[in-house]
This record gives sequence, C-alpha cells and structure tokens, in this order.
Amino acid sequence: MPNRITIKPYDSYNVSTFVIQGDIVYIGHFGGSYDDEGNKLLSVEEQVMQTFRNLEKALREIDLGLDSLLKVTVILKDITDFNAMHEAWKQIFSKGYPVRTTITSNFVDDHCRVQIEGIACVN
Amino acid sequence: MPNRITIKPYDSYNVSTFVIQGDIVYIGHFGGSYDDEGNKLLSVEEQVMQTFRNLEKALREIDLGLDSLLKVTVILKDITDFNAMHEAWKQIFSKGYPVRTTITSNFVDDHCRVQIEGIACVN
Amino acid sequence: MPNRITIKPYDSYNVSTFVIQGDIVYIGHFGGSYDDEGNKLLSVEEQVMQTFRNLEKALREIDLGLDSLLKVTVILKDITDFNAMHEAWKQIFSKGYPVRTTITSNFVDDHCRVQIEGIACVN
Repeated sequence: MPNRITIKPYDSYNVSTFVIQGDIVYIGHFGGSYDDEGNKLLSVEEQVMQTFRNLEKALREIDLGLDSLLKVTVILKDITDFNAMHEAWKQIFSKGYPVRTTITSNFVDDHCRVQIEGIACVN
Repeated sequence: MPNRITIKPYDSYNVSTFVIQGDIVYIGHFGGSYDDEGNKLLSVEEQVMQTFRNLEKALREIDLGLDSLLKVTVILKDITDFNAMHEAWKQIFSKGYPVRTTITSNFVDDHCRVQIEGIACVN
Repeated sequence: MPNRITIKPYDSYNVSTFVIQGDIVYIGHFGGSYDDEGNKLLSVEEQVMQTFRNLEKALREIDLGLDSLLKVTVILKDITDFNAMHEAWKQIFSKGYPVRTTITSNFVDDHCRVQIEGIACVN
C-alpha cells in the first residue's frame, strides 16, 4: 500500500504532497514565489531558491533531503528565465545531480515564474 | 520484463496504454472531450470527469481503480480552467490522493481542454 | 543508493543524464536539432529521429536500448508538428511501445522543435 503524505499547505487541496511506494517518493508541484514572511519574490533566481527550500523543508518531514532527488521537472513561465534558473540550480546542486527536464507553462498565480515536481528515493 | 498493455483506441497509435514494471504502472495520456455516445463535452468539468472515467475504465481492465494512482499530471489547454478542473477533481478524489502537477499545453484536437497522465501501483 | 550517470554533453550542466534506482532508469531531456556533423536539422521528422538516436547512443553506454523505455514524454514546440512526429515515432517503435504523452513547450534554442524525456528499465 502506498504511503500518502500531506504536508501544509497541501492539506486543503485534495492532493498528496508525497506518495511513497516501495523506495520511491513521488512529488507533486512545489512553488516558491513568496518568502517565509509572505513577501513577493520578484526574480526567478529567488523563486528557484525558495522553491527548493520549500521542497527541502517538506522532504525533511519524511527524513529526506534534496540529495534524494532522482528526477526533477522545472516548469518555467518564461523560457527566457532559463539561464537565471540554471544559475540558481548550480548553487543548489553541486553534486549528486538528478536528471532534469525544463518545460514552460502558464500558472494560476500570475506572479509565479517557476514550479518544480519530481521523483525521489528513500535512501 | 515490462508488461506492455494496449487497450483500444490506443492499439492504432504505436503506443502502450499502460506499461507495468514490478509493482508500478506507467500511464500515457488520457483525454475525455467526448462522452460515451460521441457527443462533444463543452465544459472543462465535464471533460475532467470523462477523462478520469476513461482512465478508470481502462484501469479496470487490469483490475485496478483510480485509488491506485500515485502521481497525476493534469494538462490544461487554458490555465483559467484550473478552478473548474479542481472542482471536478474534488468530486473524483475524496481520499487517497495522488500527488498532482498542473501544466498547460496545446492539443492536437482543438476541442480538447484537458488531458492527464501519470503513474499508478499494483495494489 | 541511486546510480547517477553523466554522459557528455551533460557533464557541464550540473544534471545527470540517467539516474538508476533499483531496476528503473530516470532519463532527463534529450534533443536532436543538429546532426552528428553539427548541421541544423530543419524538419521535425529529422529532429525526432536524431533525438532518439542521441538517446539510443547514451542508453548503449549503460548497456540498454530503446526497447528499455517504459514512459516517454514528447515535448513539441508546435503542436502542428504532431503528425510528423508520430510518423517518425512509428519508424522508431514497431513493437514494445512505451506509454507516451505529448505536450508543448518553448525551448531555449529557438531552432529546437522537439525534446523527449522519460523512464526506462534495466531489462
């Protein structure tokens, strides 16, 4: 039986934050367009850093870290943000890289410039 | 060896409907822009409901149900359909939620407003 | 522990080409908008063929082939390229089909018309 884990603020959305089946962790979308104090983050670098901080914080609740990531989809609002996204990525991942695919999409929150989703493993 | 399963109408497309490896079921795109009688479904709510009915029907052929879903990508033509999609989602999933990511994409069929794809498990 | 494999030209991007966990191979984005001599490929058919050739070549380095693919996401710049993509797909996959989902996205390289990503298995 899969282990379905819901961490705030996902508890109000009828979705799981993580679903663990065997040693694999399936991860739904994460964003980070606001900082921990609720201030809007304007640059895509800041949003990428905050997005991975939010994911890291949630992963920590199941005793995992960003080094557990196997596969990441980076979803950008605007492909011209790619280089700035990649600069932040290089700060976050200096070894133990996941595979990555970058696509573009519109978002519900017009202020949001990046989201991520992916797959991790229980180490 | 993976178990590759093709269910109509996917048999004419050189793709599998499901590929099962171990206890994981990989699921290709499903849509639902027409009802079972072939009538066009106009609203995104109706299309979301029909899309998951189509997936449920196909999953039943391998003795699974929507409760086997671990990870779902919802692909919308228009992000302004998000709230309507989510209303339908809440009717479909009242517990045992998969993780979800929503992205936007164009579709071959201009009438289609939503598709889904994902990963499930053999319970 | 996942086995993280980086094959050129991915070594300069802080991403893995493949990450293997158990018997599953997670695959990041592949493209093929230039041929092996560095000439631009203009048609989407040619780019699809080259993209899968590039993936096949990389998979061969871990003793796998395209028949190991379980799940493929085809990412098109322009949905009107769908039929041409599918014609190439039918040449590549005559049996043992993966599941497939096709979405649209912008790309960093304006010349690129298609990318793929997916999941394979160690046979």
